[in-house]
Amino acid sequence: RIALPVFASDALSSVAYAPDEILLTLSLAGMAAYSFSWKVGLAVVVVMLTVVASYRQNVHAYPSGGGDYEVATVNLGPNAGLTVGAALMVDYVLTVAVSISSGVANISSAIPAIGEHKVLYAVGLVLLLMAMNLRGVRESGSAFAVPTYLFMASIIGMTLFGLIRAATGAHMEAESAGYSIQAEDSFTGIALVFLLLRTFSSGCAALTGVEAISNGVPAFRKPKSKNAATTLLLMGTIAVTMLMGILVLAKMTKVHFAADPETQLIGAPPGHEQKTVVAQVADAVFGGTFASPVFYLVLAVTGLILVLAANTAFNGFPVLGSILAQDRYLPRQLHTRGDRLAFSNGIIMLAGFAIVLIVAFNAEPTKLIQLYVVGVFVSFTLSQAGMIRHWTRHLKTENDPAARRHMIRSRVINTIGLAMTGTVLVIVLLTKFTQGAWIAILAMAALFMLMKGIRRHYDRVSEELVADLDEDMKLPSRVHGIVLVSKLHKPTLRALSYARAARPSVLEAVTVSVDPEETEALREEWDERGIEVPLKVLDSPYREITRPIVEYVKNVRRSSPRDVVTVYIPEYVVGHWWEHILHNQSALRLKGRLLFTTGVVVASVPWQLVSSDRVKDVGGYNAPGAVRRGEPSAKQKAEARARREAGRGTGGSAGGGGGATGR
Amino acid sequence: RIALPVFASDALSSVAYAPDEILLTLSLAGMAAYSFSWKVGLAVVVVMLTVVASYRQNVHAYPSGGGDYEVATVNLGPNAGLTVGAALMVDYVLTVAVSISSGVANISSAIPAIGEHKVLYAVGLVLLLMAMNLRGVRESGSAFAVPTYLFMASIIGMTLFGLIRAATGAHMEAESAGYSIQAEDSFTGIALVFLLLRTFSSGCAALTGVEAISNGVPAFRKPKSKNAATTLLLMGTIAVTMLMGILVLAKMTKVHFAADPETQLIGAPPGHEQKTVVAQVADAVFGGTFASPVFYLVLAVTGLILVLAANTAFNGFPVLGSILAQDRYLPRQLHTRGDRLAFSNGIIMLAGFAIVLIVAFNAEPTKLIQLYVVGVFVSFTLSQAGMIRHWTRHLKTENDPAARRHMIRSRVINTIGLAMTGTVLVIVLLTKFTQGAWIAILAMAALFMLMKGIRRHYDRVSEELVADLDEDMKLPSRVHGIVLVSKLHKPTLRALSYARAARPSVLEAVTVSVDPEETEALREEWDERGIEVPLKVLDSPYREITRPIVEYVKNVRRSSPRDVVTVYIPEYVVGHWWEHILHNQSALRLKGRLLFTTGVVVASVPWQLVSSDRVKDVGGYNAPGAVRRGEPSAKQKAEARARREAGRGTGGSAGGGGGATGR
Ligand SMILES: [K+]
Ligand SMILES: [K+]
Ligand SMILES: [K+]
Ligand SMILES: [K+]
Ligand SMILES: [K+]
Ligand SMILES: [K+]
Repeated sequence: RIALPVFASDALSSVAYAPDEILLTLSLAGMAAYSFSWKVGLAVVVVMLTVVASYRQNVHAYPSGGGDYEVATVNLGPNAGLTVGAALMVDYVLTVAVSISSGVANISSAIPAIGEHKVLYAVGLVLLLMAMNLRGVRESGSAFAVPTYLFMASIIGMTLFGLIRAATGAHMEAESAGYSIQAEDSFTGIALVFLLLRTFSSGCAALTGVEAISNGVPAFRKPKSKNAATTLLLMGTIAVTMLMGILVLAKMTKVHFAADPETQLIGAPPGHEQKTVVAQVADAVFGGTFASPVFYLVLAVTGLILVLAANTAFNGFPVLGSILAQDRYLPRQLHTRGDRLAFSNGIIMLAGFAIVLIVAFNAEPTKLIQLYVVGVFVSFTLSQAGMIRHWTRHLKTENDPAARRHMIRSRVINTIGLAMTGTVLVIVLLTKFTQGAWIAILAMAALFMLMKGIRRHYDRVSEELVADLDEDMKLPSRVHGIVLVSKLHKPTLRALSYARAARPSVLEAVTVSVDPEETEALREEWDERGIEVPLKVLDSPYREITRPIVEYVKNVRRSSPRDVVTVYIPEYVVGHWWEHILHNQSALRLKGRLLFTTGVVVASVPWQLVSSDRVKDVGGYNAPGAVRRGEPSAKQKAEARARREAGRGTGGSAGGGGGATGR
Repeated sequence: RIALPVFASDALSSVAYAPDEILLTLSLAGMAAYSFSWKVGLAVVVVMLTVVASYRQNVHAYPSGGGDYEVATVNLGPNAGLTVGAALMVDYVLTVAVSISSGVANISSAIPAIGEHKVLYAVGLVLLLMAMNLRGVRESGSAFAVPTYLFMASIIGMTLFGLIRAATGAHMEAESAGYSIQAEDSFTGIALVFLLLRTFSSGCAALTGVEAISNGVPAFRKPKSKNAATTLLLMGTIAVTMLMGILVLAKMTKVHFAADPETQLIGAPPGHEQKTVVAQVADAVFGGTFASPVFYLVLAVTGLILVLAANTAFNGFPVLGSILAQDRYLPRQLHTRGDRLAFSNGIIMLAGFAIVLIVAFNAEPTKLIQLYVVGVFVSFTLSQAGMIRHWTRHLKTENDPAARRHMIRSRVINTIGLAMTGTVLVIVLLTKFTQGAWIAILAMAALFMLMKGIRRHYDRVSEELVADLDEDMKLPSRVHGIVLVSKLHKPTLRALSYARAARPSVLEAVTVSVDPEETEALREEWDERGIEVPLKVLDSPYREITRPIVEYVKNVRRSSPRDVVTVYIPEYVVGHWWEHILHNQSALRLKGRLLFTTGVVVASVPWQLVSSDRVKDVGGYNAPGAVRRGEPSAKQKAEARARREAGRGTGGSAGGGGGATGR
């Protein structure tokens, strides 16, 4: 199975924006502060490698792919799990918003005209991803593999090429090398330390996406855990290499990247638009003119990997929703996997929230990243805490010394991981809370409360519905059948004959008289046709339909409370949604009202209009992210189904038969 | 019954904006052209009186209150009727947009701060009217009577007061008397004639609303037709008096009202906002300072009557929709009168379209009036043409000489009416088409096509459904009952016992196995409870629910095609819409799929959760405009119902009983 590329786009793409964040945060203290850039980069590398080492333990312990939500729920309880769930939901939304905004920023660096309408392009891209995922376009492994490898190759290649050119004494200068940076303030002592911590927090954006891999273990080749762990290590090493490569090149080519270019960038021409760090470095390394084809290639690939990263969120979000729905934190119907509708709702919601963020923050990656990192580190921290509990619990029952040693070693690694991610989380909270992280925290809290509430509702209903083992299953004494009639057309005749076939104790047809002439005509036709069911006419002086019928049914119930009343409603089945608007509305409303009465069964007798033929079973739907989750395609499913059915004799009490049907 | 006020607000309110339109159109030719204002006014008076005389014939001939749609349909055929229907729908939307915009303009003349946000206030007023009509606030007759009489009293009183003051030699000058008007162009010869015709067209805005009265005949005291005809005459006389009064006062106080005040008004201070003609006249007549309480009263009353006029459209639009739905030009469910939902849709649509127009035309009455007049005159013209046919038809069978004389006289009046309104329609089309009337015509054409299409659809379905008298009503041989089971809770147990009570030939319970453990637990509980219905488990390797069940049902149908399959679905009934989102979704989807299979009855077995108690029958809904249509209130209806039920012995075959229930 495809391993690295499918999962790595989210994690690797982060190196496209992390260096920018490090440099621009340092720029607040002026040019001199840039000397800290590679040190901050190294700190991020340490965190990254620690997190990767920790997640390698997760992958071994939870090969089922439940991810951080499962680890936290199993080991720390439902509230911790739900916190992770809420954090991950926020994380998915921000992955889309940040990745797309950064992608547009990189493309704008190559084509400035796009930058003038960046919000428009960003929203357009989100809508495009939404449409593709709604249609269920099946992603192929290579759709991920090619851009991922190209991205790695271009960033690492660029680094090597740049280092070689530097070694040969070539003159490489970024576009902004000539500008100087105006500090926003003087940072000394504590203020400088705080600024460096803030820079570090921003740099930790490079870690976003690592959490995604532990969700994907089932999609790896066997031995799954081992392959997943190897992939994690590989990906971590590559990511830190790329990150440091870009930072070193930026330093070498003297990239001056400002938080607020309009006021801070001294010497830039008026109307100058600051280009991304990757763009400036690529320009400097590959020749210094913005027309070099390699420069365009690097930016195109960077833009593409960021769009792919956003796409992985479209895959992951509905799956997370499905898992949360299974635990009844979200509406039950989201749980039905492979179900188009459930996924559609998730996809539309994700796109909607991402668009709101993009518009609200003007598609500026820097502003969005302030919200981003906190959710990921909440998830990291709780996951590592859960793993420590996991090992402690298993150590209690494990006697094999080798296994015990292994577990103790794992626990040490996860403890270091917890210490590290916990510290980073605190730093992020301290330095970013007022910068925008509060929005993410507020959203997480709101989601947490909402999901708690939904769960409470389900629990209450479930309690209300529980039936004792000695629950009285007394049969109603008789069935009173009522066929609703408005006209004597085919649907009504079918409903009448189906109702008669059911042989209820009493059967009558009921019509509401809105227009005396029509009613008289109906009565005459009734006699003419010799229909054996008696026709009862209900008066409706105010031309209401629903109320007289509901009242009549209630009267029947009152006069014989031990009967069931079955109301047969002829319904038209049509093929277009707009046809649906034109039909059945009063039937629907009536049905809605009748359901509130105990002891009533509402039986819809459908009549299929010709237009209903166009609705064939859709069937061939590929759930987004199926490759990533290692699920079979719609085609594979259909084939498996055909095989199963062909091989089956007779199926169950109804005497199957039926053979391999296309359906 | 209240006669004049309820109907007159729409018609009378037009005199609030017609004078403005006359003056501002003339202003294009400069100040000298104002000398034509009272002549154009007189021409409008002639048209008004002719139309009133013509409509008096309509009212006598069609006391049922069907209005122009009925007259055109009966006498000229369905296409003419539908044209009137489309024209009236456009007319209603414009009545709201124009009246509210003009109302805001008048209020702004008193309180300039409101004028700065006129679009906001106009949209807010439309939303307020929408909300009130959605809630079904019962309008009382006096709610109409007081403002209508106040409006008539203030305009006529102002005219008399002004004339008396003028006679005593008082100096009355409007705010704009000192400014001069810059002509936009020189208008001579044909151009001047064309401009006068355009002015006349604009002045004909005074006639909008007359068409409303013929819809309201049933609400009059007996003799209805005679009272309605008298009211029409009275209203026409008052309207022309008010119109001429304002024009004469405007001339006397030298109101200079420009089409484009910014470029045309010479001598006005910078930032000057032109006040409405009524405001300028009232200011001049009542003392010349903008602080006079009488001035504020006149403007408040003018604003109020305009809002009431807009409100009548909220009453009329759903009724028109109901009539068109009865003839199957609109979705059938709009026909159910007194039905809250049907009215709600109409009210929201009307408000939506009006808001679009208000925003698009910046709440400027002048621009909106360009769209307004054409629809009304289409309706007038076709109605008069229809009336001529009506009399000609009746003359063919009438022998009584007195009646014949009367009919011939009526026909002469309607012929004059047709000639007049037809001429005005042509003039309006010629002079206003490019000014904006094309938008109204386009909208009418689109509505016409849409309604034709809906009718064609209904006709096609109706043809498809028609059953021959010898239609085969063969009974299905057996009933195969299937109870869908997911868990063994109370709703499932109820569905099982109801299904057993129906005694089908075959009865089985069916569950879809999504999780083997859950399925095993279900099987064990099934045995433990000793349920006598066999439980069939369907496999679902991909965790689908709908497909396995639909396929199973189809298989059953295939193996015994003469059976009916009745699928019992346990459903939860909840009280809040958001609870509905959390339940029943898969049941709903399944039902939707099963209906596409012939020979299947889908029986919903409801289980009422505690929360469903909160949904009581709403009942007390007053349809908007009920007073205007002479319908009883919800309270009256409930009382009548109770009386009827109390007086009733046993009702029908089910052996009623039941007495007077409060429900
Ligand atoms: K990363
Ligand atoms: K990421
Ligand atoms: K992510
Ligand atoms: K009028
Ligand atoms: K009007
Ligand atoms: K009107």
